[in-house]
Amino acid sequence: MTTWRIDLAYDGTGFHGYARQQAVRTVQGELETALEPFTGPVPTFVAGRTDRGVHATGQVVSFATETPIDPVRVVRSLNRRLGPEIAVKRLVAAADGFHARFSAVGRAYEYLILDGEVPDPFLSRISWHLGHALDVDAMDEAAAALLGEHDFAAFCRRAEQRSTIRLVRTARWERRRPDLVVFTIEASSFCHQMVRSMVATCARIGRGAASPGSMADVIASRDRSLTAGPAPPHGLTLVRVDYPADRLGEP
Amino acid sequence: MTTWRIDLAYDGTGFHGYARQQAVRTVQGELETALEPFTGPVPTFVAGRTDRGVHATGQVVSFATETPIDPVRVVRSLNRRLGPEIAVKRLVAAADGFHARFSAVGRAYEYLILDGEVPDPFLSRISWHLGHALDVDAMDEAAAALLGEHDFAAFCRRAEQRSTIRLVRTARWERRRPDLVVFTIEASSFCHQMVRSMVATCARIGRGAASPGSMADVIASRDRSLTAGPAPPHGLTLVRVDYPADRLGEP
Repeated sequence: MTTWRIDLAYDGTGFHGYARQQAVRTVQGELETALEPFTGPVPTFVAGRTDRGVHATGQVVSFATETPIDPVRVVRSLNRRLGPEIAVKRLVAAADGFHARFSAVGRAYEYLILDGEVPDPFLSRISWHLGHALDVDAMDEAAAALLGEHDFAAFCRRAEQRSTIRLVRTARWERRRPDLVVFTIEASSFCHQMVRSMVATCARIGRGAASPGSMADVIASRDRSLTAGPAPPHGLTLVRVDYPADRLGEP
Repeated sequence: MTTWRIDLAYDGTGFHGYARQQAVRTVQGELETALEPFTGPVPTFVAGRTDRGVHATGQVVSFATETPIDPVRVVRSLNRRLGPEIAVKRLVAAADGFHARFSAVGRAYEYLILDGEVPDPFLSRISWHLGHALDVDAMDEAAAALLGEHDFAAFCRRAEQRSTIRLVRTARWERRRPDLVVFTIEASSFCHQMVRSMVATCARIGRGAASPGSMADVIASRDRSLTAGPAPPHGLTLVRVDYPADRLGEP
């Protein structure tokens, strides 16, 4: 039995999210169908189950199979079948016990907001066109309150079963272009819609409708009604998944 | 009578080219329809008539009208109606006699080739995924032969009526990412499919199927059968149009 690691990128626009569902087009569904000629039906595991409309440049998937496969040939075949919306960047034999989701120790997301008045045809699929100027310094100040270990219940959907305590290692807003601001957040893991809820709450601060200092109070409240959002899914991209050195998937 | 200058960007994927045609969706058709409530039916003139599938980040259009218009309001309305595929970046009163096409003294295009094996979901609409590695130094050497004033008949469609002599001011290939090469070309003007024919001919050299030195012979031959291509339209973007300082459209 060999465990394999797939690194993939996708434009989520045309999919009903990552996770396989009946009767609709999903990234997992397309990927597993394309793998099946090589492996037979095998379950795959994903590091970050992205919602409908969310993108990835650094998604990781794992699966195990006893069937020997030629990774170069499989990557070519997958890209022919799945491209250009889904790109398989690599396929490598992983360390024993590697699991894309459970081995992961961190995930990094980016969220793009176009805050100029003029739309950008080349960013419209991957950014939220808010259309009025944001105070990125105020947003970055608010984001600093997210750093560290907190109970992020205020940013998690009520239905959440597990603990809502997470460790946030990076949270910052930067202006990348005169009309474009970018949120970068890295954490151990995220609960559902957590990033998009943080983005909308920061955008409210960036518009001047709340103060940067209010973010600490929102976190402490653990009250979802005090947060804004969620921001639209299409501005969000999973950019990286981190694994411990001995679980890199590169034995 | 006031002459107006429009700067616009568009993702050409969903249009049958720039120029208005019956019964199909074109950039000019959409733009003129969106302008009509403010100006009545007016003819518009464009700096570079892009083909079906070709994009623009720096297209320029002009029109003249006696109806007074509020540019801020018109830009907002146009972007609401045309966005996100077409973005009106600005609308300004131009110098007397300004004409987007006839006042232009130069046009700059970029052409993107993804030459890595793996597709890129986020560049698939704006790049040619050639899928095997190109020798960008050989391509850049070949491009240098394009510089200066030449008869570019070898790169122009037979149907071309006008002179095929053009002045090329910039022509270079650069590697922008490990898997992405970019052609930048600036000239007084271009004949139809000239850039795409140059791109395909350079790509043939980049694949090793012809030598960099062959480019000078191809130009001198004025023989279209010696060129490759045209390369697919969706890799091509009109990035800038140049006007003399007294015709900038910014009086």
